[in-house]
Amino acid sequence: MVTLLENPLRVGLQQDRIPEPQILTIFGASGDLTQRKLVPALYQMKLERKLPPELTIVGVARRDWSHEYFRDYCREGIEEYGGGLGNEQLWNDFAKGLFYCAGNIDHPESYQKLKAFLSELDDQRGTRGNRVFYLSVAPRFFAEAAQQLGNAGMLADPTKHRLVIEKPFGHDLASAQVLNRVVRQVCNETQIYRIDHYLGKETVQNLLVFRFANAIFEPLWNRQFVDHVQITVAETVGLEGRAGYYETAGALRDMVQNHLMQLFSLTAMEPPNSLDADSIRNEKVKVVQATRLADLENLDNSAVRGQYTRGWMRGKEVPSYREEDGASAESTTPTYAALKLYIDNWRWKGVPFYMRTGKRMPKKVTEIAIQFRDVPFLMFQSAAKQANPNVLALRIQPNEGISMRFEVKTPGNSLRTRSVNMDFSYDTAFGQPNTDAYSRLLIDCMLGDQTLFTRGDEVEASWRILTPLLQAWDAPAEADAIPLYEAGTWEPVEAELLLNRDGRRWRRL
Amino acid sequence: MVTLLENPLRVGLQQDRIPEPQILTIFGASGDLTQRKLVPALYQMKLERKLPPELTIVGVARRDWSHEYFRDYCREGIEEYGGGLGNEQLWNDFAKGLFYCAGNIDHPESYQKLKAFLSELDDQRGTRGNRVFYLSVAPRFFAEAAQQLGNAGMLADPTKHRLVIEKPFGHDLASAQVLNRVVRQVCNETQIYRIDHYLGKETVQNLLVFRFANAIFEPLWNRQFVDHVQITVAETVGLEGRAGYYETAGALRDMVQNHLMQLFSLTAMEPPNSLDADSIRNEKVKVVQATRLADLENLDNSAVRGQYTRGWMRGKEVPSYREEDGASAESTTPTYAALKLYIDNWRWKGVPFYMRTGKRMPKKVTEIAIQFRDVPFLMFQSAAKQANPNVLALRIQPNEGISMRFEVKTPGNSLRTRSVNMDFSYDTAFGQPNTDAYSRLLIDCMLGDQTLFTRGDEVEASWRILTPLLQAWDAPAEADAIPLYEAGTWEPVEAELLLNRDGRRWRRL
Repeated sequence: MVTLLENPLRVGLQQDRIPEPQILTIFGASGDLTQRKLVPALYQMKLERKLPPELTIVGVARRDWSHEYFRDYCREGIEEYGGGLGNEQLWNDFAKGLFYCAGNIDHPESYQKLKAFLSELDDQRGTRGNRVFYLSVAPRFFAEAAQQLGNAGMLADPTKHRLVIEKPFGHDLASAQVLNRVVRQVCNETQIYRIDHYLGKETVQNLLVFRFANAIFEPLWNRQFVDHVQITVAETVGLEGRAGYYETAGALRDMVQNHLMQLFSLTAMEPPNSLDADSIRNEKVKVVQATRLADLENLDNSAVRGQYTRGWMRGKEVPSYREEDGASAESTTPTYAALKLYIDNWRWKGVPFYMRTGKRMPKKVTEIAIQFRDVPFLMFQSAAKQANPNVLALRIQPNEGISMRFEVKTPGNSLRTRSVNMDFSYDTAFGQPNTDAYSRLLIDCMLGDQTLFTRGDEVEASWRILTPLLQAWDAPAEADAIPLYEAGTWEPVEAELLLNRDGRRWRRL
Repeated sequence: MVTLLENPLRVGLQQDRIPEPQILTIFGASGDLTQRKLVPALYQMKLERKLPPELTIVGVARRDWSHEYFRDYCREGIEEYGGGLGNEQLWNDFAKGLFYCAGNIDHPESYQKLKAFLSELDDQRGTRGNRVFYLSVAPRFFAEAAQQLGNAGMLADPTKHRLVIEKPFGHDLASAQVLNRVVRQVCNETQIYRIDHYLGKETVQNLLVFRFANAIFEPLWNRQFVDHVQITVAETVGLEGRAGYYETAGALRDMVQNHLMQLFSLTAMEPPNSLDADSIRNEKVKVVQATRLADLENLDNSAVRGQYTRGWMRGKEVPSYREEDGASAESTTPTYAALKLYIDNWRWKGVPFYMRTGKRMPKKVTEIAIQFRDVPFLMFQSAAKQANPNVLALRIQPNEGISMRFEVKTPGNSLRTRSVNMDFSYDTAFGQPNTDAYSRLLIDCMLGDQTLFTRGDEVEASWRILTPLLQAWDAPAEADAIPLYEAGTWEPVEAELLLNRDGRRWRRL
């Protein structure tokens, strides 16, 4: 197993290797994520010959399934949510490596049974004791499962045993600290893979290339030239029956603390010494630790929440959040959040980073927009009204790409200027990206590359930033305490004001 | 008549005004330029309602034509080389303003006759004594015509009388100085319009907007970030029966001293105080005066000439330069020139500007390419071989536009980078530009705006740079003294070496 220390040049985001033979054990195997995402992603890699032939997958859940049943369950997932089986022979070969082991997440016996079964499989499949344990269970079980795996000695070998933990990692700073303490008692940070599938997206990784493989952007990437940054993650979906989780989470925990903070830190971080996992993660942590809400005295100058009411989307009426199954009729859970952050360091002092995310927005779109300052001196007087600052927009989805807004002369005898876009689209250049985020992250984990996984200190740092907001917004409040926005529209007016007060506007996307 | 001093805000490239009533007198009216370019350009503006109804055009040439004949001649030009007449009524209106006045460029009487005729027309057409005299005659007559106009008192009023002089302005520094002295004896610099139709092109003017209406390019526009600049003006045409002129001119006089130096100075100049004519021209002169050939000790390190031999273009065999009608069989006239220039100032010290122009190149293309330096530190080791410096390319023709080459991540699990282009095309954004260069320049001249015309000191400064080369290349030499390149191919190998010696390459276009 190549680890960071053994071979720094091969690691980071660089490798193109086949993982060692190993067993991937998925806790919560009967859940949606396994069938819709994990197994199809693994099979896709099988098709692309990126997996070791010995790779073995063991599903663990409470239900009393047979291996055969689990295999059919997986096959179903691949056919329905993946790219299909491709050739039957390959599927048979893949299926041979699928096993199921019923167990109870809080019963020590289950772990003993699993442990025995896995070493059986080692002999049978030649997986040499290499293990990845993927916790795809309800967050409240993360600590329990890690604890039990540790007690059973299944995380004892730092070079052979890894633990993947799904988001959300903790519910606030305190609980994240507790969870970190628990898992670190049973294994090293180098064994822990806190997953945020956003980091598996091509364009997110491309942020590093874009910033550090090009000489012309970095010189502009600072307070001298940047006016402000806008990060937007807009969803069209509503609650999707996840009320149980969402009522206690809300937009801050569901999106901001993980996805948006990842986009934020990759955008704002200093150049790392190299691409190895810790060089990059050191810089990410560093910038997040220097970040704070814009105004801690008056949180209304730092953030705005919102909740969607009944409205229309694509000609179809949709219910308000409070009308969704399982949501309280007086819920004040935010389905929208807008934040204004400052980074107290030399590069970014005084440059506001605005973030927004919401459900039931008019459009599903994720983008990072760097808005540059005005020209120091505008000599095109007669055109002044039209002259706009330059904007560099990194679109994560849909239609991944990069576009730059700049001014050109409109044809004709006068010298009016107009904004146009220079544009680049990944699809046009490379065709539809075939690697989905989970494939990328699963293979990185099997390879022992932590670059695209969140380190413990980073998680805590981002929770720390949000703590004052969480406290304010979690506090019991009247139903009318939260600003409302109609489903199918952009932010509540309060969020508009957050920028208007600074003489700025949200981008229309 | 608005002059710079009277109304600085309205001038420069800004105005969108109708010129005052005036008479445009064209010397050399029976020539190609008048029929193919000038008249169709004027008529186009008529269609666009940009001309004063009183505008009067007087053709002057030796032949004994009638007004009617001249009108038919113009009509022909508009129909064959312009956009057509549009509606008949408009043509009739335009034709009423067309007159012909036979005359001999070196006979004083002809000028007296012309003078009388023009004041007749003033009464008849209400043109108030406003005059533009356009010298579209053989260069050797420029001084003569200016002198005679002066002697006849037809350039006496600085606010009403203007003189347009076609290129080439002089044959070398000495002759340009003489010509400047002659014309300045008969009028002020503010009355002199040295025309270079390249400056009438949208994209050339757009260089100013691009550089100074955008905040993100100027910070990179200097020696700290730019590795070198390449300016290319490639023609597919050969001699086109212009041997008489071209044999004594060659690429340096025909293209470099005017077109390429204009592109050069607009690219390299400092930001002007404003857009008025002299602010811009002051900066252009300033940078040209700071410019020199790279190596004055050894000119071979500064420039390479070439001449095309017989070859194939679009499946058709074309003759060598020496086989063209009127060209000497031992001619050493360069049809290709490549130069390496340095600018001795704070912004550009040490940054080479490479220029090339040639006839019978594979493609008609004009572009300015800013190649930026490599990233200071490349962390993408495994991708290092593919990593390319950023290039900003300003295409003047064909397909006017701007494109930026930068590095992105190629999709997939590894972190290879690849060069892609962010692109902007004028046609796509604005449709085909309708104002041709001559329309633009003629209207500017009628409006008294000198911004897009070359000032006397600028012409002399650019001749000064080329003097050592002109002396070397004009010297009598053996036929085999000049490097050859096959028609339909790019530069001679010697020109490749000019860059290769510096570890660089010409762009493949």
